[in-house]
Parts: sequence; structure tokens; C-alpha cells
Amino acid sequence: MTGYIGLDLGGTFIKAGLVDQDGNIVLEKQIPTQVGQGAEVIVENLLEMVRLIQDDMSEDMDIPGVGIGAPGCVKVSEGIYVEGPNLPDWKDFPVASILSEKLELSVVVDNDANMAALGEYTYGAGQGCTDMMMVTLGTGVGSGLILDGKLYRGVHDTAGEFGHTTIQFEGPVCNCGRKGCVEAYIGTNGILAVLKAKLEAGRSSVLKEMVLDKIMPKDIGMAAKKGDELAIEVLHDVGYALGIGFGNIANLLNLERIVVGGGVAAAGDFILEPARKGCREMAMKVQGETLQIVPASLGNKAGFIGAACLAMLNSQ
Amino acid sequence: MTGYIGLDLGGTFIKAGLVDQDGNIVLEKQIPTQVGQGAEVIVENLLEMVRLIQDDMSEDMDIPGVGIGAPGCVKVSEGIYVEGPNLPDWKDFPVASILSEKLELSVVVDNDANMAALGEYTYGAGQGCTDMMMVTLGTGVGSGLILDGKLYRGVHDTAGEFGHTTIQFEGPVCNCGRKGCVEAYIGTNGILAVLKAKLEAGRSSVLKEMVLDKIMPKDIGMAAKKGDELAIEVLHDVGYALGIGFGNIANLLNLERIVVGGGVAAAGDFILEPARKGCREMAMKVQGETLQIVPASLGNKAGFIGAACLAMLNSQ
Repeated sequence: MTGYIGLDLGGTFIKAGLVDQDGNIVLEKQIPTQVGQGAEVIVENLLEMVRLIQDDMSEDMDIPGVGIGAPGCVKVSEGIYVEGPNLPDWKDFPVASILSEKLELSVVVDNDANMAALGEYTYGAGQGCTDMMMVTLGTGVGSGLILDGKLYRGVHDTAGEFGHTTIQFEGPVCNCGRKGCVEAYIGTNGILAVLKAKLEAGRSSVLKEMVLDKIMPKDIGMAAKKGDELAIEVLHDVGYALGIGFGNIANLLNLERIVVGGGVAAAGDFILEPARKGCREMAMKVQGETLQIVPASLGNKAGFIGAACLAMLNSQ
Repeated sequence: MTGYIGLDLGGTFIKAGLVDQDGNIVLEKQIPTQVGQGAEVIVENLLEMVRLIQDDMSEDMDIPGVGIGAPGCVKVSEGIYVEGPNLPDWKDFPVASILSEKLELSVVVDNDANMAALGEYTYGAGQGCTDMMMVTLGTGVGSGLILDGKLYRGVHDTAGEFGHTTIQFEGPVCNCGRKGCVEAYIGTNGILAVLKAKLEAGRSSVLKEMVLDKIMPKDIGMAAKKGDELAIEVLHDVGYALGIGFGNIANLLNLERIVVGGGVAAAGDFILEPARKGCREMAMKVQGETLQIVPASLGNKAGFIGAACLAMLNSQ
């Protein structure tokens, strides 16, 4: 039996899975990343994850390779993690060769958003299409592109920054310092800013009973599910802005599908329906009408599943 | 000797060329399209162009195929011209099979903006890169994408509508009816609206001596070259808006190069410099710093050269 180990290296946890050739998750593990304790500690934790899986797997399992998804900028062909805000311990760090030598296995590393896209494309909500984007809605907005059936990385492996598509260049300030990016609307700060403005305008809502600084997007989603009008309106407004961004992508790339995941996407159709509306209104006819905007199906396993898929592709 | 015939079918003229395998233009012709006289007349004119070239070419020339670039929506794999505003005579018109039967040659048809992109990529300003966009600035904004060294068409062959990237969703109305598209700034109407607003605000300019409704973008370009401050400012403003759109593309696709052609691009660096500035300011660091924004080099021959290239690819 053949399986591939996928490692999803996050700022807080390392998630790992052993995925067989049919996409079944054979084993699954999670340990803390221990960011801030030095480059070597993270390497040791990644090695530990692989060893834990190797210890638990059946003896007839053959592992041709390991894939890693890491948060930030990665030079894929060189196996180097360049940099990223959530992993300050590593800078121009040759993670693939270091792990490969210690494990005596082929190791490949890529950006975590790309890995989620590859996972959803191969075994999740992106199955069966050739041109898609996976968008992860959380504190920020991550994304990865599958074009003509292959992960598209661009000339320096930094493609896929959909979150920083400008939709209103005189709009609200984004986490990146620029104005009017998609993330400035649908990122956590963006959503909370829209809520705050509406509450300060005197609107009533069950959310008024909470301490404003403690409210998170998931609270707004829960309030919407209970029928809170203001919460529904907030999610509509930010979802519609997301849809304007999707319209840009539809016009440019004529994708078949956009798969939407991440914590904020748990609000489901409260965000997806206005996003579909915004996209249809802003996209050209064919591009807008044919684009499917669907929820992700692999949850927070998309990252390690995608990393295992990359290891699979890499060993072919 | 082997050559390919490329036909650039425009709303006013059909331009045609015989292009050899090294990209040399062996022969070149042009006749009126005669739009509005029925589907058959345009077919006859296309056939006439091919025959004129065949009559003039040397006897040892072998023609494996013909390529056509047409303005509008094309189903490439089926050889069908679907529709477009500049070619109302054709609707779901099987142009490739009709011409192929009459010429007894392989015929392939694609969108004209794609053909310009393929032409510049193969033999023009896009040579040597794998990921590029060709943008044609005219009445509207056309564009085509080369990704991973291949023409990227999307799932219904309608990719590449960069002109309708929204950069300010509360911005000026575009030719497409939506608001704040790139074309709403850098399309002919957009440029003239910016000029008009500045003139009406009482600004002085040599352009004040012209009848406002007769001014075209090329007049603004000429005034800029003579040092007219207002003309320079108009081109700066619309060029900067174009650059914001380029920033979106840079972030999403991490392209190596954007090639800018079309009549409006004759203003050269009066538009390209602010576009580069806008792009650098709106794109992420790596994506923005490494993207080259360069003028096209094939002029109005890009279309038929690209169509000949498609015929070449199609016969391989």
C-alpha cells in the first residue's frame, strides 16, 4: 500500500495526515508548532510528526514522499521557505533539503493556501473542474489557483493573492496598508469595522449585549442564524464585497468554480449568497452565469491533504 | 518552405499576413470587412484574402493551416464565432468549418485579443517569458493571457476581460454599464471624461482651442509630448488607474510581464510610467517589483501574426 504524508505547518499547530492514493485519511496527528523557539525546534516538531505517523502506520505502508504547506512565501522548486509573518523563526530556510536528509524521503514544500487549493481540487469541493480558485476566509484572505488542471504559482511562486485585489481604491484601509482590498471588507477586521459602524449608528442587535472588542466573526454568524437582522446585514455587505472581487476573477480567468473555506465561511449562505449576487452583477454574462461559488468540503484538513497530494504529484 | 496564414478580422478591415516559421512576415494584405452586408460577404472576404496571398506567394510555399482572430466571443474547440458587438452579421457562426471546407485547409479561430497576446508572446515584446498579459488600449480595453507558456482561455474560452476589472465599485460608469472598471478610466470615453472635467474646472491647456467633442486620446498624447501640463496630468491619472488594475493582476497571477499596445498606448511613458507607479504601489512587494510593464512591439500586426501562430500550434 502506498501513502503520502502531508504536513500543514500553521502558526499555532502542525497538522499532519497520512493520505492514501484514493484520498483516504489513514492517520491524522496534531502538535503545537512552538513558534518563537527557533528554527530548529520547528524542524524537530515536523520530524516528530512524521515519526509519530510512521510508528502508527501498518508495516506494509510505503511512503514515497512528504509534502509541507507553510504560511508565507515559498520558493517551491528550491524547497526554500522565504518568509512570512506567522513563522518569524524561518528566513530563507531550506526546509525541504533539511527534512529530506533527516527522513531519507523526498520532501516538497509549498504555500499553505496553494495546498488547501490542491486538496479541495483533488479530493474536495473542487473535484471534476479544471479551473478553480480556493479562497480561505479568516483573519486574512488566502487563496490558491488551479488553472488548466494544475496548481498555478506564477513566475516567483507568489500568485494567488486574491485577498489583495483592489475593489475600491478609495475604500477602507486593509491589513496590508493599502486601501480597498477584498480583505479590507471580508477579513476579520473588515467585518468587525462594518459591524461597529452599524452599531454606532444606533442599530439594535443581540450583538449589542456583547463587549464590542470581544466579538468575532463567528458570533456574527451565530447571531445571523438566530435571525438577527443587523448580523445578517453585516454579512450581506461584506459578502457582496467579496462577490465584487469574485467578479474580477470571473472576468479575468473565466473559472468554473470558486471554493470558499475558512472560519468566516462557516456563516455559509449568509456570506455566499450575497457573494454570488455581487459576482453575477459585476461579472460579464458568460463568466458570471457559469461560475459556481461553493463551500469547501475538507474543513481544516484541506491543508495536509493538499500537501500529501503535492508529495504524490512530486513522486510521479 | 512552410508558412501560416493569419487573418485579423476587425469591424472595419481584415488584415492578413503570411508568416513563416521564424516569424517573418512574407506577405501582408488588407481589405474592408464590409460588416452589415451579411454573414456570407464576410466569409467571401476572408476567402478572398487567403486567395490573394496564395496567388502572390512563391510556388514552393507549403501552407498547413490558417488562423483567424475575431472580435468577440469564440468557442475555440468548436471553431464557432458566438457573438460580438462589432460583428453582428455572425451569431453562433461555424466559421472554421466553413472556411476549412472551402479552402481545403485546417482553419482555427480565436478571440482577437488572445491572438494579439499570442503574437506578442511568440515574436514580439513578450518573448522569453512564460507568464504575461497583453493589453490593448483603444475605445475599449482588450486583453489576453499567456500562463505557463500557453494561451489561457478559461473554461468557456472567455478569460482575459481585464478591462472589466473593478477597481472602484463606486467609480465612474463603464461602457459595460457597471461602475469603476479599468476601462471606465483608460478607455477612450474614460480618458475624455477626465479631460473634460479638468477643462470645465477652468484649467488651461492647448486642448482648449479644439472642439471638445472632436478631441481624441491621440490629441491628448500629442499635447503631452509638446509639454502641455493638463494633457500630461490627464494621462497620468488614467495611467495610474490602469496601474491599479495591473496591481490586481500582479497580486493574483504574479506575472513576469504586461505588454501594452493599442492606439491609446502611443502616448508611451505618459501612460506607462504612472501605470508602473500605480502597480508598484498597489501590488505586494515581490509581485510588484518583479513585474515588467513594457510597450508592445508588433503594432497592429500582432493580431494576424498571433493568428498565424495559432495555426502553427494547431498543426503541430
